[in-house]
Amino acid sequence: MSPSTGALITIEGLDGAGKTTLAVALEAALADRGIEVVRLREPGGVVLSERIRALVADPRLEVDPRAEALLFAAARAQLCAERLRPLLAAGRWILLDRFVDSSLAYQGGGRELGIDAVAAINDLATAGCRPDRTLLLRLDPAAGRARLMGRGEEQDRMEREREPFFARVAAAYDALAAAEPERFRVLDAGAAPDAVLAAALAGIDDLLSSPEAGPPAG
Amino acid sequence: MSPSTGALITIEGLDGAGKTTLAVALEAALADRGIEVVRLREPGGVVLSERIRALVADPRLEVDPRAEALLFAAARAQLCAERLRPLLAAGRWILLDRFVDSSLAYQGGGRELGIDAVAAINDLATAGCRPDRTLLLRLDPAAGRARLMGRGEEQDRMEREREPFFARVAAAYDALAAAEPERFRVLDAGAAPDAVLAAALAGIDDLLSSPEAGPPAG
Repeated sequence: MSPSTGALITIEGLDGAGKTTLAVALEAALADRGIEVVRLREPGGVVLSERIRALVADPRLEVDPRAEALLFAAARAQLCAERLRPLLAAGRWILLDRFVDSSLAYQGGGRELGIDAVAAINDLATAGCRPDRTLLLRLDPAAGRARLMGRGEEQDRMEREREPFFARVAAAYDALAAAEPERFRVLDAGAAPDAVLAAALAGIDDLLSSPEAGPPAG
Repeated sequence: MSPSTGALITIEGLDGAGKTTLAVALEAALADRGIEVVRLREPGGVVLSERIRALVADPRLEVDPRAEALLFAAARAQLCAERLRPLLAAGRWILLDRFVDSSLAYQGGGRELGIDAVAAINDLATAGCRPDRTLLLRLDPAAGRARLMGRGEEQDRMEREREPFFARVAAAYDALAAAEPERFRVLDAGAAPDAVLAAALAGIDDLLSSPEAGPPAG
């Protein structure tokens, strides 16, 4: 039986930190505890937001950093309105790959628009929709790029950015986690996947109000 | 010979107020005075912003009011970065059909997101790019709709909105004009086109620092 109240759990970190691997493992581990989660990613999850994702990722398009931050916020506003809020109201659990903290770290820190300025546009976007817990996969920026290269993925526009950019993003993530220790749990992304999963589960243990082992609710 | 410093002149008002007619007439009248203007519209003017315009206008897409406001701001940020700022730096004159005031009136007033909240996201978008003069074509909302119907245009999603929406937009425009009398010139959109043009020219007369009659500069 699922707990009666839902939760929004976000997963944050640099590209290559293992967010998708953790999300998949966490989904299975929570299913074992009888909690069916909805797994979503940003930007995306709803039609408008996937269309916005395509715009931002299009290497032929010139995208100003301010336009980029506003496009991510627009995609987020639609996701909140169309999916997150209704799911949470229905008591569902959501695992969300990236949310507001990504914009604060990447556009606010990395692109130097300022965390407060980017937070302001996201306040309008989310209208109070906040994560119950944020799992930050913390990885040395150079190690993150090495992982990406190792798996032979194409670099998109954002990933082509230079090392100082990623250092600023990592520093912004650290600052956000330090400012909100009750919401953030910082995980060592360099650890083995099993260890990362165990740390993630420990990091949300208090949210599992009736963690009964067993098969997912039918 | 064109004046050496450029100017950003925006044209605002409800759909059907005659913004395009005025822009075309004003472009010709300024050409007669030796000023070649660049005529642009919002959202649009650059590739990314035209793509965003297509998203917002797509009747098949669900677009939350907050996402809509953020998309317009994103389109505006790109227009400022890619065209407005470079043109103004080169001393060019720009006639722009809709700008920040449209978002303040439509999303802030009409959709009731609040003028201050919408102004905050637009501050990030424009980064100080402001109109030198704003010509507000003031029209009774019912008269504006009658004009649109009269010319048999399809109503898009925004135009399908109800009468109270347009009344809120019109009231927001009036409040914006009252708050910044030095920037706004309020024109009677119900007057004959020649009279509207004459009022518009009078409304920007102080910006025409060296208004020499004659053909445009070669």
